[in-house]
Amino acid sequence: MNSNMEKPYVVGMDIGGTNTVFGIVDARGTILASDSIKTGSYGQVEDYVDEVCNHLRPMIEANGGADKIKGIGIGAPNGNYYSGTIEFAPNLPWKGVIPLASMFQERLGIPVTLTNDANAAAIGEMTYGAARGMKDFIMITLGTGVGSGIVINGQLVYGHDGFAGELGHTIIRRENGRLCGCGRRGCLETYCSATGVARTAREILTASTEPSLLRAIPAEEISSKDVYDAAVKGDKLAKEIFDFTGTLLGEALADFIAFSSPEAIILFGGLAKSGDYIIKPILKAMEENVLPVYKGKTKLLISELKDADAAVLGASALGWEKQ
Amino acid sequence: MNSNMEKPYVVGMDIGGTNTVFGIVDARGTILASDSIKTGSYGQVEDYVDEVCNHLRPMIEANGGADKIKGIGIGAPNGNYYSGTIEFAPNLPWKGVIPLASMFQERLGIPVTLTNDANAAAIGEMTYGAARGMKDFIMITLGTGVGSGIVINGQLVYGHDGFAGELGHTIIRRENGRLCGCGRRGCLETYCSATGVARTAREILTASTEPSLLRAIPAEEISSKDVYDAAVKGDKLAKEIFDFTGTLLGEALADFIAFSSPEAIILFGGLAKSGDYIIKPILKAMEENVLPVYKGKTKLLISELKDADAAVLGASALGWEKQ
Repeated sequence: MNSNMEKPYVVGMDIGGTNTVFGIVDARGTILASDSIKTGSYGQVEDYVDEVCNHLRPMIEANGGADKIKGIGIGAPNGNYYSGTIEFAPNLPWKGVIPLASMFQERLGIPVTLTNDANAAAIGEMTYGAARGMKDFIMITLGTGVGSGIVINGQLVYGHDGFAGELGHTIIRRENGRLCGCGRRGCLETYCSATGVARTAREILTASTEPSLLRAIPAEEISSKDVYDAAVKGDKLAKEIFDFTGTLLGEALADFIAFSSPEAIILFGGLAKSGDYIIKPILKAMEENVLPVYKGKTKLLISELKDADAAVLGASALGWEKQ
Repeated sequence: MNSNMEKPYVVGMDIGGTNTVFGIVDARGTILASDSIKTGSYGQVEDYVDEVCNHLRPMIEANGGADKIKGIGIGAPNGNYYSGTIEFAPNLPWKGVIPLASMFQERLGIPVTLTNDANAAAIGEMTYGAARGMKDFIMITLGTGVGSGIVINGQLVYGHDGFAGELGHTIIRRENGRLCGCGRRGCLETYCSATGVARTAREILTASTEPSLLRAIPAEEISSKDVYDAAVKGDKLAKEIFDFTGTLLGEALADFIAFSSPEAIILFGGLAKSGDYIIKPILKAMEENVLPVYKGKTKLLISELKDADAAVLGASALGWEKQ
């Protein structure tokens, strides 16, 4: 009898600045039960952990009890895989270094593995999604920020300190680059995140007098979904916004390929759902800018995980790791 | 009796555009015998391999015969670890895909492992040099070109196709970048290789009327050694050349850190021997440009392998890999 039959489930938990979502998942990636609480409502991390446990315990009992759970996987901003801590996460209410993995482990008596959200997404994709069977790929998450999870030789890259894989903070524009939340200028995130797309929309709409459906939306609020909807209706400036965003992302991906020569780069998040409008310029720039030896070799794929499930599934995949 | 006692030696071979150097090495990194031939003198690769074997056989016999050799490690430009081939190497006389590993293996009856020269240097540094005991580091070779070997989780990164780790061909200047031999613009190699330093010297000497010891040397021939000698004598423009070169390299290293968060970056080659004149601006730019979470964490080290031995030692370290 193998251990997955003895312990057939894992818990996945995704901690975001707004919501914390958690669920019980089986080996095939089916979410048996899930729930969420508001992260921001708990100024004290002890109260927060207690409240998550109050929700989790009955879910676990309803599915056979803690003995059936092989592990708990947590994806969290600034999560450190080695120490199981969250360190100086700017978008969470708790400051400094928080030993979150051990806090959950003590309360629930189940082994806990923690990493950052983009790494969790990469493991989820490798376990349940587009990267099944791949040993070398890069996951790029295009959301409020731009995150990344890098898999090499079938292993997630954590680096010597647990914080590897911040590709959203590599510099794509060194001269006159946009100011980033990290305090530096020209980070990929300032162009290809949701706020990056809104900034680009503002710039392109201001620089042109061309009519556009996007002029009806306050520029700060323009999302990649809005740009997509406008592009579908033939809006010229919307297509320009995607071309600009995709070109910068493609240039960046070409350099990432020179690092680890991955079989695929997998895109996840809002922008990735804009189809050919964004994929075509990304692919064009990537192939034009990549070193000849890599040309035509690295696939550009879209995540196969459903948005609503991806966060919990990705984190849950970590739960299988512990013995 | 372990296998290293039965087979106590390896052969290391470094194939360069000018010379091919090979030697017999023991487990402590002592080179017991070495020799070289001119790579460029053999238009047919069969003749070349035969000639190397003609030199190697008596060396092997003098050290106990082929039974004492655990493996042969080869470092070569455009070497592919997975296939044991050299593929379209611009600086070697043989075109197309050359099955070099199997050619040597057939003739000598000893297992052969092949990779590119910078990867061989990284394995050499991990086996015998500054990276002993490290599981995460990046080797940067500063020579005619700029090469790299990346080690993550104690393993060399080969990528899905065997060609990962071309950090010399990541783009450090996207606007008005220097034209590179690879056909693109702004590659790190165009600034931080030997020819890159000479180009910078030419630009800085032309842009200024300041007197400089370097004006006595034809600008195309200025080496990092010349710049170092001038800097030691207090030459202001020589220091400017190092500042410029080091700043760009430091900026690039900051982005590499965001990828794999290595314990150390190890520099090898001519430029690396210029001491504080080059190390200080590299370190300054690296620390100024790195994401805050990595600040002060990644060591900048100089290779501990002696120049004359490094190529053979690096390649030889590969020879221990095969069973």
